[in-house]
Amino acid sequence: MRYKCVVSYDGANYHGFQVQGAPNTIQNELEKALAIIHKKHVTVYPSGRTDAGVHALGQVFHFNSDIDMKDANMQNALNSRLPQDIYIKNVEHVDLNFHARFSSISKRYEYLIDIGEYNPLLIRYRYYYAHPLNISLMQEVAKSFIGEHDFRSFTKNHHLENTLRTIYDCSLVQEGTLLRFRIHGNGFMHHMVRIMVGMMMEVGKGKLTPAQIIEIQEAKNRRLAPKIAPANGLYLVEVSYE
Amino acid sequence: MRYKCVVSYDGANYHGFQVQGAPNTIQNELEKALAIIHKKHVTVYPSGRTDAGVHALGQVFHFNSDIDMKDANMQNALNSRLPQDIYIKNVEHVDLNFHARFSSISKRYEYLIDIGEYNPLLIRYRYYYAHPLNISLMQEVAKSFIGEHDFRSFTKNHHLENTLRTIYDCSLVQEGTLLRFRIHGNGFMHHMVRIMVGMMMEVGKGKLTPAQIIEIQEAKNRRLAPKIAPANGLYLVEVSYE
Repeated sequence: MRYKCVVSYDGANYHGFQVQGAPNTIQNELEKALAIIHKKHVTVYPSGRTDAGVHALGQVFHFNSDIDMKDANMQNALNSRLPQDIYIKNVEHVDLNFHARFSSISKRYEYLIDIGEYNPLLIRYRYYYAHPLNISLMQEVAKSFIGEHDFRSFTKNHHLENTLRTIYDCSLVQEGTLLRFRIHGNGFMHHMVRIMVGMMMEVGKGKLTPAQIIEIQEAKNRRLAPKIAPANGLYLVEVSYE
Repeated sequence: MRYKCVVSYDGANYHGFQVQGAPNTIQNELEKALAIIHKKHVTVYPSGRTDAGVHALGQVFHFNSDIDMKDANMQNALNSRLPQDIYIKNVEHVDLNFHARFSSISKRYEYLIDIGEYNPLLIRYRYYYAHPLNISLMQEVAKSFIGEHDFRSFTKNHHLENTLRTIYDCSLVQEGTLLRFRIHGNGFMHHMVRIMVGMMMEVGKGKLTPAQIIEIQEAKNRRLAPKIAPANGLYLVEVSYE
């Protein structure tokens, strides 16, 4: 049978969700817990990877199992064997057709920028930026990402054939000194959200105009979008399925 | 000359403010930064120690220096040499009579208990407790701490001669799933706040009554107050001077 799990984790302590050859990954911790329960190796299939330092509030993965346990019992069995910075929020039995990556229809991410006084207790969770930013111009950039666009300029992975993605919603909201960038789309390529934020920041700093961001996007050339925001501000919030 | 500094830090990564023989302390990091600036060892005198895992939003220390720098320059010089989880919030020149420990007249602490769903991104900063608590009885206990009392039952350090302390204010406020315990007093002994919270929790769980907490306090016997709340929920918020 197949189980679908929703997991949240603090990415600051890990090399990423899954990295070839790195021992310190979220996937290794999940597979270690599953191996204790199953007394054999069980492979974890995530909706996608997250980079080192990136957090998740609602990452999804599935695994196959020959143990038929109640959902809540499987959740407890996993959580009692996981480190305290990884937590299984939900478990459910799913059809064998379900695939955490290929069945997903959309993802939500958030990126947190703090323009207030530096707080050493939040540096793992926010990108601190202490200089002036033109926030309304940044909001204009966020809006311009909405719709179906070719995001080839905004990914590290420039060998992909299909770089067309649809952004359903994108906004930048100011809450005190916190700037919350929210984005919801049908799919995201490697580094795409962090490059979007990095380039939006260039507009906030007055180095580029919102119109230039659109030109860069239309040029489909990663070398024109060289900025990338740090990993610590990024959260994978939700993965949706039909 | 003498400098007074206000420092905030994430205690989760350290063995405490200062521990004999431990290399990984806040004081070591501060003294390393000061040694680079002064080209010699400079001793840091804190308002008091904090234990491993305990955070500070406004810890105070002083040091003596033969370098006369503007306050803001000294602050920048220190922050540029400190790890990202330690931050100097303020620097000022003070009189040679000023002593971070002996001149302090009061301290404020907070302790955060979360009774909501476990969040692995906040475990370094809150004590998660998932079972029912009688919060109004806990609030009664918090109130009973106010005033001048002998807190010998509530300290690890039972060899102290004077265990009389005055609590100016103490309260427990619920903000959603967060229980915020605030305490302001003229001085606190080792483990005192964490034992107060640990014993208050016993009342919340129904294992003790508020009247029994007062009896335990009056008995001046640490063995009657064996509970101690974990370090990760505790914050040194402010140290006050005349």
